Amino acid sequence: MDKMRAMELVLEAKSMKGLTFSEIAEAVDRHTVWTTSALLGQQQMSMTEADAVVDLLGLDMDVARALQAPADKGSLDGPVPTDPLIHRFHEIVQVYGTTLRSVIQEEFGDGLMSSTDFRIDVERIADPAGDRVRVILDGRFEPYRKW
Amino acid sequence: MDKMRAMELVLEAKSMKGLTFSEIAEAVDRHTVWTTSALLGQQQMSMTEADAVVDLLGLDMDVARALQAPADKGSLDGPVPTDPLIHRFHEIVQVYGTTLRSVIQEEFGDGLMSSTDFRIDVERIADPAGDRVRVILDGRFEPYRKW
Amino acid sequence: MDKMRAMELVLEAKSMKGLTFSEIAEAVDRHTVWTTSALLGQQQMSMTEADAVVDLLGLDMDVARALQAPADKGSLDGPVPTDPLIHRFHEIVQVYGTTLRSVIQEEFGDGLMSSTDFRIDVERIADPAGDRVRVILDGRFEPYRKW
Amino acid sequence: MDKMRAMELVLEAKSMKGLTFSEIAEAVDRHTVWTTSALLGQQQMSMTEADAVVDLLGLDMDVARALQAPADKGSLDGPVPTDPLIHRFHEIVQVYGTTLRSVIQEEFGDGLMSSTDFRIDVERIADPAGDRVRVILDGRFEPYRKW
Amino acid sequence: MDKMRAMELVLEAKSMKGLTFSEIAEAVDRHTVWTTSALLGQQQMSMTEADAVVDLLGLDMDVARALQAPADKGSLDGPVPTDPLIHRFHEIVQVYGTTLRSVIQEEFGDGLMSSTDFRIDVERIADPAGDRVRVILDGRFEPYRKW
Amino acid sequence: MDKMRAMELVLEAKSMKGLTFSEIAEAVDRHTVWTTSALLGQQQMSMTEADAVVDLLGLDMDVARALQAPADKGSLDGPVPTDPLIHRFHEIVQVYGTTLRSVIQEEFGDGLMSSTDFRIDVERIADPAGDRVRVILDGRFEPYRKW
Amino acid sequence: MDKMRAMELVLEAKSMKGLTFSEIAEAVDRHTVWTTSALLGQQQMSMTEADAVVDLLGLDMDVARALQAPADKGSLDGPVPTDPLIHRFHEIVQVYGTTLRSVIQEEFGDGLMSSTDFRIDVERIADPAGDRVRVILDGRFEPYRKW
Amino acid sequence: MDKMRAMELVLEAKSMKGLTFSEIAEAVDRHTVWTTSALLGQQQMSMTEADAVVDLLGLDMDVARALQAPADKGSLDGPVPTDPLIHRFHEIVQVYGTTLRSVIQEEFGDGLMSSTDFRIDVERIADPAGDRVRVILDGRFEPYRKW
Amino acid sequence: MDKMRAMELVLEAKSMKGLTFSEIAEAVDRHTVWTTSALLGQQQMSMTEADAVVDLLGLDMDVARALQAPADKGSLDGPVPTDPLIHRFHEIVQVYGTTLRSVIQEEFGDGLMSSTDFRIDVERIADPAGDRVRVILDGRFEPYRKW
Amino acid sequence: MDKMRAMELVLEAKSMKGLTFSEIAEAVDRHTVWTTSALLGQQQMSMTEADAVVDLLGLDMDVARALQAPADKGSLDGPVPTDPLIHRFHEIVQVYGTTLRSVIQEEFGDGLMSSTDFRIDVERIADPAGDRVRVILDGRFEPYRKW
Repeated sequence: MDKMRAMELVLEAKSMKGLTFSEIAEAVDRHTVWTTSALLGQQQMSMTEADAVVDLLGLDMDVARALQAPADKGSLDGPVPTDPLIHRFHEIVQVYGTTLRSVIQEEFGDGLMSSTDFRIDVERIADPAGDRVRVILDGRFEPYRKW
Repeated sequence: MDKMRAMELVLEAKSMKGLTFSEIAEAVDRHTVWTTSALLGQQQMSMTEADAVVDLLGLDMDVARALQAPADKGSLDGPVPTDPLIHRFHEIVQVYGTTLRSVIQEEFGDGLMSSTDFRIDVERIADPAGDRVRVILDGRFEPYRKW
Repeated sequence: MDKMRAMELVLEAKSMKGLTFSEIAEAVDRHTVWTTSALLGQQQMSMTEADAVVDLLGLDMDVARALQAPADKGSLDGPVPTDPLIHRFHEIVQVYGTTLRSVIQEEFGDGLMSSTDFRIDVERIADPAGDRVRVILDGRFEPYRKW
Repeated sequence: MDKMRAMELVLEAKSMKGLTFSEIAEAVDRHTVWTTSALLGQQQMSMTEADAVVDLLGLDMDVARALQAPADKGSLDGPVPTDPLIHRFHEIVQVYGTTLRSVIQEEFGDGLMSSTDFRIDVERIADPAGDRVRVILDGRFEPYRKW
Repeated sequence: MDKMRAMELVLEAKSMKGLTFSEIAEAVDRHTVWTTSALLGQQQMSMTEADAVVDLLGLDMDVARALQAPADKGSLDGPVPTDPLIHRFHEIVQVYGTTLRSVIQEEFGDGLMSSTDFRIDVERIADPAGDRVRVILDGRFEPYRKW
Repeated sequence: MDKMRAMELVLEAKSMKGLTFSEIAEAVDRHTVWTTSALLGQQQMSMTEADAVVDLLGLDMDVARALQAPADKGSLDGPVPTDPLIHRFHEIVQVYGTTLRSVIQEEFGDGLMSSTDFRIDVERIADPAGDRVRVILDGRFEPYRKW
Repeated sequence: MDKMRAMELVLEAKSMKGLTFSEIAEAVDRHTVWTTSALLGQQQMSMTEADAVVDLLGLDMDVARALQAPADKGSLDGPVPTDPLIHRFHEIVQVYGTTLRSVIQEEFGDGLMSSTDFRIDVERIADPAGDRVRVILDGRFEPYRKW
Repeated sequence: MDKMRAMELVLEAKSMKGLTFSEIAEAVDRHTVWTTSALLGQQQMSMTEADAVVDLLGLDMDVARALQAPADKGSLDGPVPTDPLIHRFHEIVQVYGTTLRSVIQEEFGDGLMSSTDFRIDVERIADPAGDRVRVILDGRFEPYRKW
Repeated sequence: MDKMRAMELVLEAKSMKGLTFSEIAEAVDRHTVWTTSALLGQQQMSMTEADAVVDLLGLDMDVARALQAPADKGSLDGPVPTDPLIHRFHEIVQVYGTTLRSVIQEEFGDGLMSSTDFRIDVERIADPAGDRVRVILDGRFEPYRKW
Repeated sequence: MDKMRAMELVLEAKSMKGLTFSEIAEAVDRHTVWTTSALLGQQQMSMTEADAVVDLLGLDMDVARALQAPADKGSLDGPVPTDPLIHRFHEIVQVYGTTLRSVIQEEFGDGLMSSTDFRIDVERIADPAGDRVRVILDGRFEPYRKW
């Protein structure tokens, strides 16, 4: 079973049992964002993590094995997402890409933000003018080493 | 004068005078990220903001006018950035795009994070294992209205 | 069941029963355009709305569940539609894109038309020289906030 | 002189004189949207219309000649606009493309909305919850003729 | 049943019965080119036309229903056809595109050839130096209306 | 001087002198379509033809030499034209491509319409319901030779 | 049965019977290159040729019918082949494309090498420094006819 | 001076002096195809070869230096050539790509035709039915080495 | 059975039996990198090699036949890999492509590194600051031969 | 002055003075590969390094400033290089991409090879059967951190 099929079975069972990603994350003992990305085929779970998922959702061991398999990362159909929610993030990279490079280089020197020693947080900030989505990208700075 | 030419003159003067984006931002009385994106041609400055820039950098009024012109937003040459620093953000959208959609929809319902009522912050988090880059995307949640 | 399969079953049943999108929209108690886009997999129905659809069309609850699932929005195969009817709208964006930006910015300032607090209407205007299609796009203006 | 160069000179003069597109449109005696699209290189002006432009803006006859030249229509750099304001219209075509086809075909039969016997209107609708942008696309229905 | 599946069944039956497109067109009482394009999924047949097809070919009513369904027009896999016969037409648009625009604009003014009030004819012209293919594209001129 | 620069000079002089493509074609003693395509850089003129052009338009011998140079054929910026007039021809290839292949193959056997032993005619057909554009593509049939 | 499925069955049977393309070509009484391209779905066989194939390989008449069907020519997944052997030919077109045009035009005048009145030969040239692959492309010169 | 500028000067001088590629090749003492590709910027000439070119054409040493510079090989604007003469070669790769792979692998085993230990010949074969273009690609077979 | 299906069965059996690529490589008596690439469909195994695989993994002869079939090389979905591990190699080609050309040309002259008389090694270099991945690409230099 | 212009001046001076990249690298006191990539606009030099370059080559301080500017990394025109030498590296990523992922993941676990804490070496290995190019990519392993 490949990770995409496992994802379908997980989402179906999740919907049938009325569970949220946060509740599954709690069972897995990981952050909601990481757990969600693992269930969507973008991470490699440990055996304990995968077992927790299939136990909670009542799925069989084929799914658990797929969740532990290495990921072929990349969740989109093409370089420009068509879904508006995802597109906003693409748009931010398009509009602020050179800005982020300039600000990070000025503050840190030549290098970049790691996407492996990295985490994402999504927070809801209550606001009378409309609640806000806060997405926090947090990665170690990786300097370019000269040789 | 178009905004790209203004950007070149601004960067040249900034380099000659040894100023940082933060110092220009202070003169403009705006956040460093916003000011940088405006100098890189992605925002529309007010007259006061543009005047502060040309005063500080010793540039003429043509540059100020260009900084106040409407922006044709989009700072990259194509949909997939080749510069590694910028590419990491593209990669994050590729890998975590469906995750962000799932997590935001579960928390907020059908809608998305605004990219207009929106701000970006870049912070340096000191860490003995290597300082960390923290990029905070913060936008109002925009629910889909049915009709 | 995914939304694409649900769409196929809905269209098949609609054709068999000889119903129009407007008649389904009436049962759903929503506008024809919104209802059609929901049936074509681009919106997330409430339980009541989805139940109205499957009741009217004699479909089972799997379809109703799919209609309530979050949408991966985007109804076309690529960025440039080949179907001539849809292409005309793409052509309008190509030809009048910069015009719309200039006119909206001049009238409203820096910002854009929301596509979430948004509705579309399609009207038939009788005209002796040939009836006219009137498509009305109506979205809240979203100003860019500086920070 | 080509139409792109004419556009640059027009926009520069317009900015220097502090004129709006609406004021130029009044001088040209055409709708603001049509006039703007002509100034942005997407239409072919008559001699009277072009003369009114150069008179008002104090430009020379080369510009007038360019405004009367046939247009190589298409105002964007690629099929997917990067500017967020323009992108929202692309997004609407992506998300609602098949919906528009279904609704128009059901109402009118096999055919499409003309983009030549066609006009666009942009209106500002005052609204306490935030003013609204209303874009009205209005074209004759063109039925497919069988043979 | 979708139009692609109907096309497969039609072509299979046509081949089994040894019929030509012209013979089917005669039964449908339409031109060979229009009938062929309808059988290849690019047009919407009336009930009478579709019934004539399934009667002649011995197919069932599912096929007839599919032939009457609205078409998602576009018969190629991508913008540049690889099949040499079809590519020649693409090549003609590439090489003579600006020529056709110049000649049509000079003769007719600003506008274009309709592709809805339109027909195609294919004729065989006997020629001792090798018979010739004559493809006649014939559409109403559609002038751009100013507003 | 390259053919693109020659084209610009030719179009400028043509506009200044108020000549039509047909009038230039008469001087060249070739068909209007062929002459136009040669002036737009898509054909290789003979010395006599090129001389006739520069004589009529009052241009110098550099232009004549460029008109006689071999052409790098292809008049469009990309595979999908954005200009609506040219796009209609692209659309016809998209929608009727497989139809043309089927009809030509059935009539002629395996082969294709030559685009070298080939001519295009554009005719205006008066019609009370709106004059019609008739574009005639006429090429020798080239059978595939087996070996 | 479509030509792709026929190709799979042919290749499977060929492999099972341990036959080479040359041996099949001999049975078909055609050149190895032409026969191979026909078996790979790029040509239209006569009934005799197709019957020889299915007789030799022990396949049924469905395969023979598919081999006689018109081909939708084009054997690659995209414009740039990834397979290194095939890519070398693409590379040769990339590197020597303008050279081939210049040399052919200088020798023959304005025109091109036919790809229909055309044949390919592949020869093995023994060489102590490593045997050589010789691919011979041989097509009638097709002059551009002016009109 | 870069190789593209050198190419322009070479072609201009060649045209002025009425020389053919073959005559230049004779002066360079190399094959016409190789010499042409070197003049078109695709090869690296030796000092002797480059000197022979500038001597013959009366160009200065900057051109000679550019002809000796390493080449950034690739003579086309994109992966699919629009020029019909060059496109035929692309078409041949598209249609016969998998055929060439099958025939070469069957004859030689796993490997490919070198494009470095490689030569191209273009011959004119007189033929009463129309002279033929013969293009001979000749490269050492390079077997894949396992490890 | 095609090579992709064989790959799936091999990976499934490998996972079930808890074998590593190195262990399979040992049974095949080839390097781990070569063996892995063969199992992933990129090489052509000999009968002995393929038999060793199916013996070790308990698969049937269909798999062995597929492993011996010629490869349609190319393991990625598109030209820009989305998986971050693979993307780093693409990035290295993007950033260091012209550097590698300059350094190799200066050291070796005009030519390139063979990708057929070629091997890849992957080594783990222990390092207290974090172990290092060393990827060694090793191919015969192939000089361009002039003719 | 931008980095591309600086690169041109550096390459011109280097050619005039007959220096190699290795000799410049020695003056800069860095590895030849790193120095070359910096001169080709892909790295950010320190003041000392840049001064050494302009001293050696006799260039002015504008060039030195450009060499110290941050790089917009990416040395190629598109995702698929056309130059054969560079293309071989692209081909290696295409063919061995999934192999490298499998081998690295099996040896190191979930993670990737850093492209910042990274170096490239190019070595010439003498070999009687033809000298070999050895390219060594060496980067710290970066494990994915879960959260």
